Amino acid sequence: MHRCQPPDAVVWPQNVEQVSQLAALCYSQGMPIIPFGTGTGLEGGVCAVQGGVCFNLTHMDRILALNTEDFSVVVEPGVTRKALNTHLRDSGLWFPVDPGADASLCGMAATGASGTNAVRYGTIRDNVLNLEVVLPGGQLLHTAGQGRHYRKSAAGYNLTGLFVGSEGTLGLITAATLRLHPAPETTVAATCAFPSVQAAVDSTVHILQAAVPVARIEFLDEVMMDACNRHSKLDCRVAPTLFLEFHGSEQALGEQVQRTEEITQSNGAFHFSWAKEAEERSQLWAARHNAWYAALALRPGCKGYATDVCVPISRLPEILVQAKEDLKASGLTGTIVGHVGDGNFHCILLVDPEDTEELRRVEAFAQQLGRRALALHGTCTGEHGIGLGKRQLLQEEVGAVGIETMRQLKATLDPRGLMNPGKVL
Amino acid sequence: MHRCQPPDAVVWPQNVEQVSQLAALCYSQGMPIIPFGTGTGLEGGVCAVQGGVCFNLTHMDRILALNTEDFSVVVEPGVTRKALNTHLRDSGLWFPVDPGADASLCGMAATGASGTNAVRYGTIRDNVLNLEVVLPGGQLLHTAGQGRHYRKSAAGYNLTGLFVGSEGTLGLITAATLRLHPAPETTVAATCAFPSVQAAVDSTVHILQAAVPVARIEFLDEVMMDACNRHSKLDCRVAPTLFLEFHGSEQALGEQVQRTEEITQSNGAFHFSWAKEAEERSQLWAARHNAWYAALALRPGCKGYATDVCVPISRLPEILVQAKEDLKASGLTGTIVGHVGDGNFHCILLVDPEDTEELRRVEAFAQQLGRRALALHGTCTGEHGIGLGKRQLLQEEVGAVGIETMRQLKATLDPRGLMNPGKVL
Ligand SMILES: Cc1cc2nc3c(=O)[nH]c(=O)nc-3n(C[C@H](O)[C@H](O)[C@H](O)COP(=O)(O)OP(=O)(O)OC[C@H]3O[C@@H](n4cnc5c(N)ncnc54)[C@H](O)[C@@H]3O)c2cc1C
Ligand SMILES: Cc1cc2nc3c(=O)[nH]c(=O)nc-3n(C[C@H](O)[C@H](O)[C@H](O)COP(=O)(O)OP(=O)(O)OC[C@H]3O[C@@H](n4cnc5c(N)ncnc54)[C@H](O)[C@@H]3O)c2cc1C
Repeated sequence: MHRCQPPDAVVWPQNVEQVSQLAALCYSQGMPIIPFGTGTGLEGGVCAVQGGVCFNLTHMDRILALNTEDFSVVVEPGVTRKALNTHLRDSGLWFPVDPGADASLCGMAATGASGTNAVRYGTIRDNVLNLEVVLPGGQLLHTAGQGRHYRKSAAGYNLTGLFVGSEGTLGLITAATLRLHPAPETTVAATCAFPSVQAAVDSTVHILQAAVPVARIEFLDEVMMDACNRHSKLDCRVAPTLFLEFHGSEQALGEQVQRTEEITQSNGAFHFSWAKEAEERSQLWAARHNAWYAALALRPGCKGYATDVCVPISRLPEILVQAKEDLKASGLTGTIVGHVGDGNFHCILLVDPEDTEELRRVEAFAQQLGRRALALHGTCTGEHGIGLGKRQLLQEEVGAVGIETMRQLKATLDPRGLMNPGKVL
Repeated sequence: MHRCQPPDAVVWPQNVEQVSQLAALCYSQGMPIIPFGTGTGLEGGVCAVQGGVCFNLTHMDRILALNTEDFSVVVEPGVTRKALNTHLRDSGLWFPVDPGADASLCGMAATGASGTNAVRYGTIRDNVLNLEVVLPGGQLLHTAGQGRHYRKSAAGYNLTGLFVGSEGTLGLITAATLRLHPAPETTVAATCAFPSVQAAVDSTVHILQAAVPVARIEFLDEVMMDACNRHSKLDCRVAPTLFLEFHGSEQALGEQVQRTEEITQSNGAFHFSWAKEAEERSQLWAARHNAWYAALALRPGCKGYATDVCVPISRLPEILVQAKEDLKASGLTGTIVGHVGDGNFHCILLVDPEDTEELRRVEAFAQQLGRRALALHGTCTGEHGIGLGKRQLLQEEVGAVGIETMRQLKATLDPRGLMNPGKVL
């Protein structure tokens, strides 16, 4: 959707002092500054729409401190989610936020990422304790104070929360202190096929109401399920489906599994299938993580674009049904997959990048879906961010006073408007 | 600690339009605006240090919307935590954030409150979905957009997070959308006495590491335990003690309880006692909630002041031991009680308000304890806020760039400096 616009230059700083010096230099020269994590963002966040200098932070890839007793870790911006979890492997801890892609953790903080585990462990917002940020002029800010990694605080304005999700428009994140969780003792996964979208979503609501601490609950529509079957050699029934995962002790899992099965059955589930073995489980989640590529394989040569609305969970069935109707009416090819426990789902739309008319239809569909979510008290983006394409929707979402407040904050922290210009606002 | 300074006038607006009109009037006339919730704040937040108009919001006490399927509710600023939970009684849902006092929910949002349940359910920060705010000039801001109550979003800057914990210095909160939780199916409480502070804290760390989803884990030192025994007619051993609570299904609780008992025993616990009956349980938690009054009863006629530091949990034993030594050296009377699962504890100090020398010793003790927490990578306030007395500590905590950034945000949103002046910064 977002055509790549290259920067005038790329720098690869090796440490925070270099980031600071380079930022000060760019700022004094009126050069835009574009932070780059791993480039997996889906909203054109790293496009250099006004040229400038791209700060590629991948060379800063150290894990600076691990405090196992305090459940915290400090990472540089080149450390990815998978690298961190590999490092943690023998510690009994893990970092659960999982956007599928092997994104940088600081990039995830910058975009407000979440993914499949958020229903239980929260989004990246809930798991960032402190950020080291180079402000546009080169000054170094520790959002919670240098070296601090306490679990909660009521000290002053929540600067950490302000920088999480700011998409590189307020400063460069040069280190993140993250909250870790005990690695699950036992894990069980399952798939469950339903006669309708409504039945799948009703089951989700009932599972949450029953306080079953489900770790993952993902919805796939029948088109997505079909595509995953083919791409990842699964053998699931082609129907609206939930992929589930449970974490806990052997005994606790038994009960969670039983309750969930009862709930899904009372909602008319066709078929329940449990995957206890590690291999079977990773096959399932690999398929879920490859959903994007499975969708792309439906129309080889085409590009994908993923919508990202999130609504109050009671409104999910209606917006999913509407989305499927809109999809049909638009003549586009698309699948639906989502983090249904959060009310968040994606339509993955396939588009021939040479076909400007089709591109326009994709854009129109995405805007319409965004407006449908807004009408249902939802948001135009659950986890991918605003980037380039959703700035108009953001205005509709937060209203005139909200946008004006955001503009004021931006002008205060970046008076020359050089931090990742053209994004968010 | 904070001598009351009365405002020039008090207004009791009945609705948001009146709040807005009155705020606009005050602002245009250069009158300070002091929001008032229920006045349970412990840091002098409602003192009118520069005079001005106190906005008493207790008359706005409606519950505006309850969405049980979406686990959310919208409350006006006069609604207290207990009033909300009474309203929710038959809904199968509850609001867990519990600072003991029956504070207003918007006041809790304003101070960044938490309390006994935060270890499992998070603080108020984690449970506010949206805020309606009257900005100093009278403009109406919906931090997440009007009527929105989705579970997560990556849309623009996190305005909700900025207003939570701003202690009335950025605007008046006129409604809060809160996240609700399924009411626990079964509840079990327990007390457990230990030979040392270290043994109690080690048990806490091990319980968290074992991923036992403990709902409450509160520490009382032997002085506090003794005071509670007398004040609330308990019969607990006078020793460092943990008060615990577990929420879950009958079966899940059995396992949680067993694991916890094993962990505490392996840390040398003297005595474990379970309270399954509702009556026994409420007696226990009433005693915990009355800890403040139990402490006051140690020196009748004296006032209390509660410190509020929070440190990474691994540093708790050392700071608790230091605090007890400092307390002894200072000659002050004080008890210790805390939300030990978060690393947060309070020394409740008893002081004769007529004795200026003793007042000075209390202040010196509180400052020293704050600095000890900062030296251990902690915060000077886990949940009570900065208010009047911790402004110097806040500067030390977040550093020059942090304070300067907060000052800029304040100047942007309140250019005339009339919102609750003299607090936080
Ligand atoms: C197949 C696929 C599936 C995905 N699924 C999900 C999903 O389920 N959930 C989800 O949340 N996301 C998902 N994403 C999106 C993506 O992984 C996230 O947006 C990710 O958080 C971005 O991290 P990054 O390091 O790649 O950032 P980039 O793409 O490099 O940058 C993204 C934005 O953040 C800014 N930025 C990056 N690093 C920094 C920094 N250090 N300091 C300041 N600003 C910075 C950039 O300027 C840009 O605006 C998916 C992506 C793909 C390709
Ligand atoms: C015995 C006792 C025990 C306590 N235990 C705990 C505990 O365990 N955990 C904990 O977190 N706290 C605890 N507290 C502190 C207290 O309950 C909290 O600080 C509470 O969150 C304040 O709410 P309130 O409505 O009373 O606010 P107030 O005291 O009225 O005001 C507090 C601050 O918030 C501002 N404010 C209030 N309402 C609004 C509004 N609507 N809009 C904007 N600003 C507003 C005020 O201007 C002031 O700065 C305890 C207090 C007592 C008395």
